[in-house]
Amino acid sequence: MIKVTVWNENIHEKEEFYKDNLLKFYPKGIHNAIADFLNKDPEIEAKGVTLDMPSQGLPDEVLDNTDVLFWWAHAGHGQVEDSLVEKIHKRVLEGMGMVLLHSAHYSKIFRKLMGTTCSLRWRETEKDRERVWTIDYSHPIAEGLPDYFDIPGTEMYGEIFDIPQPDDIVFISWYAGGEVFRSGITYQRGKGKVFYFSPGHETFPIYNQAEVQKILTNAAKWAKPTTSTVRPMTTCIDVAKSPEWDK
Amino acid sequence: MIKVTVWNENIHEKEEFYKDNLLKFYPKGIHNAIADFLNKDPEIEAKGVTLDMPSQGLPDEVLDNTDVLFWWAHAGHGQVEDSLVEKIHKRVLEGMGMVLLHSAHYSKIFRKLMGTTCSLRWRETEKDRERVWTIDYSHPIAEGLPDYFDIPGTEMYGEIFDIPQPDDIVFISWYAGGEVFRSGITYQRGKGKVFYFSPGHETFPIYNQAEVQKILTNAAKWAKPTTSTVRPMTTCIDVAKSPEWDK
Amino acid sequence: MIKVTVWNENIHEKEEFYKDNLLKFYPKGIHNAIADFLNKDPEIEAKGVTLDMPSQGLPDEVLDNTDVLFWWAHAGHGQVEDSLVEKIHKRVLEGMGMVLLHSAHYSKIFRKLMGTTCSLRWRETEKDRERVWTIDYSHPIAEGLPDYFDIPGTEMYGEIFDIPQPDDIVFISWYAGGEVFRSGITYQRGKGKVFYFSPGHETFPIYNQAEVQKILTNAAKWAKPTTSTVRPMTTCIDVAKSPEWDK
Amino acid sequence: MIKVTVWNENIHEKEEFYKDNLLKFYPKGIHNAIADFLNKDPEIEAKGVTLDMPSQGLPDEVLDNTDVLFWWAHAGHGQVEDSLVEKIHKRVLEGMGMVLLHSAHYSKIFRKLMGTTCSLRWRETEKDRERVWTIDYSHPIAEGLPDYFDIPGTEMYGEIFDIPQPDDIVFISWYAGGEVFRSGITYQRGKGKVFYFSPGHETFPIYNQAEVQKILTNAAKWAKPTTSTVRPMTTCIDVAKSPEWDK
Repeated sequence: MIKVTVWNENIHEKEEFYKDNLLKFYPKGIHNAIADFLNKDPEIEAKGVTLDMPSQGLPDEVLDNTDVLFWWAHAGHGQVEDSLVEKIHKRVLEGMGMVLLHSAHYSKIFRKLMGTTCSLRWRETEKDRERVWTIDYSHPIAEGLPDYFDIPGTEMYGEIFDIPQPDDIVFISWYAGGEVFRSGITYQRGKGKVFYFSPGHETFPIYNQAEVQKILTNAAKWAKPTTSTVRPMTTCIDVAKSPEWDK
Repeated sequence: MIKVTVWNENIHEKEEFYKDNLLKFYPKGIHNAIADFLNKDPEIEAKGVTLDMPSQGLPDEVLDNTDVLFWWAHAGHGQVEDSLVEKIHKRVLEGMGMVLLHSAHYSKIFRKLMGTTCSLRWRETEKDRERVWTIDYSHPIAEGLPDYFDIPGTEMYGEIFDIPQPDDIVFISWYAGGEVFRSGITYQRGKGKVFYFSPGHETFPIYNQAEVQKILTNAAKWAKPTTSTVRPMTTCIDVAKSPEWDK
Repeated sequence: MIKVTVWNENIHEKEEFYKDNLLKFYPKGIHNAIADFLNKDPEIEAKGVTLDMPSQGLPDEVLDNTDVLFWWAHAGHGQVEDSLVEKIHKRVLEGMGMVLLHSAHYSKIFRKLMGTTCSLRWRETEKDRERVWTIDYSHPIAEGLPDYFDIPGTEMYGEIFDIPQPDDIVFISWYAGGEVFRSGITYQRGKGKVFYFSPGHETFPIYNQAEVQKILTNAAKWAKPTTSTVRPMTTCIDVAKSPEWDK
Repeated sequence: MIKVTVWNENIHEKEEFYKDNLLKFYPKGIHNAIADFLNKDPEIEAKGVTLDMPSQGLPDEVLDNTDVLFWWAHAGHGQVEDSLVEKIHKRVLEGMGMVLLHSAHYSKIFRKLMGTTCSLRWRETEKDRERVWTIDYSHPIAEGLPDYFDIPGTEMYGEIFDIPQPDDIVFISWYAGGEVFRSGITYQRGKGKVFYFSPGHETFPIYNQAEVQKILTNAAKWAKPTTSTVRPMTTCIDVAKSPEWDK
């Protein structure tokens, strides 16, 4: 079983403004909505945690038992403690997979993993529509996906996206307003696999779409740690004597 | 089950010169030696075929039922019919995985897939030793592999290797004679996944090493086709009318 | 001086149907239009050649004196002799740069360099508009370009584009009809640098746009051969004795 | 003119232990040794600065007038102020090139740009020898370099090197002791180009070798900022209204 923890800042869920849409789409919050559809896969065991829980939702016993960490965040980036960011970063480098969603492009942990600003263009209107094109069509994360699918209501996230060149560009999005975006991208960092997927604005029921659920289920499987026996990379090692010297 | 076909030119197996080593290591030929260890994995169903069989070992009913094609070749590159190369190429682009071994770097099919000469340095002596370093240590093909392992006798294959920049460099080899080589590399071509692995000279029992068997078993699993529903790429398509025009 | 040869099949230029637009935009043909703006750069010396010239426009004395070859083709792919394709391929691997334009994605030489079908979606209407986004904004080919620019009339070329993963994706295009396309991409093949740029349909004055001229001028400079002293890659070499053996 | 600033921690230069070798090879310190050979190129204007100068050698007026920053560091990583690291990081993302040398793989700035530990294997003996192989032989940084060159005395830096997948692997090193290393690698971060080159241990006269000087001179030219007019990436921008809405 792949143990997935879906972390959500859970801020919009408690705001008056969002009651009419976010909670209508996701009555138990975004974290539980995502965990619920992930749990439909027999290989995945997912549960939701939130920023307002003890240890910001990620005490060591949870983090150390997480194969893949999902991360939804927007308004609360600054509230996440630096010490927690350090712990997550270390876990990714040791092999924990990470799937970052929508505004998580601007989270402390994503920016730390990338080394860039992760800035982008954005626009929030009622007119934007998004079409997600499958580019890397034999990538495990694209398994079962069609050439493209539409998201009828969306927040626009557009290029230039200030990120390192991705290892793989799985999806590129088209917007009715005239923009494009590398909306599904992968990176390896240390032993950990990282996937960023941009659709998922809080005012639209995007995580209820079958294609999005398929992508994120694929991503959980793709990002699970491999069982390489390679040494931990926590420090440089002095291999003081070469076996070659005696030959 | 992943259906693997291991193709071997089966030429050295029939030459007087090689009887004392190749057949000692691989009594049933290289193809069957590889198929045998692949078959130890419960997800794989492998069988060996050879150039001297009807249809050069790959009649349509075999090729069309192959998920991953392994290819060992050296002296017989020129004997492989161009029409067969075209068929294999088409199958790779449609999704069949391909694992190319040792001198197969100079096969018609690998050069066609790469678009370059695939030339390299080489040296055949009794003194060469090879150390295979795991570089991309969370790659599925590196699963279970150590930091490095040694091949006590080997033919040297050295840089500069005239290939396109690989999608992933999984292994880099060190040679006692002073060379390095990108010895385990991946490419996507169309829907097909391609892995080239250089160790495997006919005068050394390299395919009997546990690490090599692990790598090739991993490769068979990694290279199996995904079930993307994306359209075949056999031709350009005219999408004459955009759905946007009516909005 | 960078010696650029702009090859054009020069077929539409002679067809009745195109007289009202192509020749209005490019009175001396596409090849000379491109050569003319390239020649405005003091480092470039460009001239146009065509399929209907002796040796299909590329006798050895021209090809051997070309630093960067531009290639515009559409209706005449099949007329280009295989022996010429082989010569060009060899020259690219030896270091000649190559810039492939628009329908040249389906030329023999591009498909040979890529190893894939290079298929794509397309649509020819009067309604399509294209917006070219700069993605790799510090790439030499993007020098001086804005975040994006518009092409008011265009033929749509859309994903999925069946190509190997590019070394660099410099531009991604947006289309009013709902598609995206990796419209400016680079590859290294042997010692040669290859750039494909999709805008340039024969019925629109795209090569007269300042941004397109800037991109292609940048591309000519980027693709010029380096003066590496590395050995030619025409064949494998047997480095029979390692200098290490005597140490 | 490309304005290069060569920063050196300048610690070993002042230690008793190193007087017999480092200062014999580089009488004015490593920074001035590097600046001196860079200055032989008519396009480059280089000067050395050190950690023990005011503002740790990089007051704003110097940093803001630097096109490419070279960085040699080993014992003093911890002494570099975090605020200076932030300034350098910002300058790189804005377009300043950066060339990191030898133990600078473990500097605060390199680790911040990479997002990984940048750990590696190492060994310091009198027996190690290094052979630097040119892999990406048409890369601008490889211009004029041979297939390989030798460094007779060296500190071993070996894989696994815990870094993100490089944009380009220009050089791979072989070591007599049995290791390999991606010794010359490039990254783009924001608008800035980054090159890491591992040879350069303080107890060997490596920067006096012609090949190394050629590589670093090439790197200075390659890493100079492009003049893209693309907007600064310091923040996300709200492009509130799409021009498409009025069409």
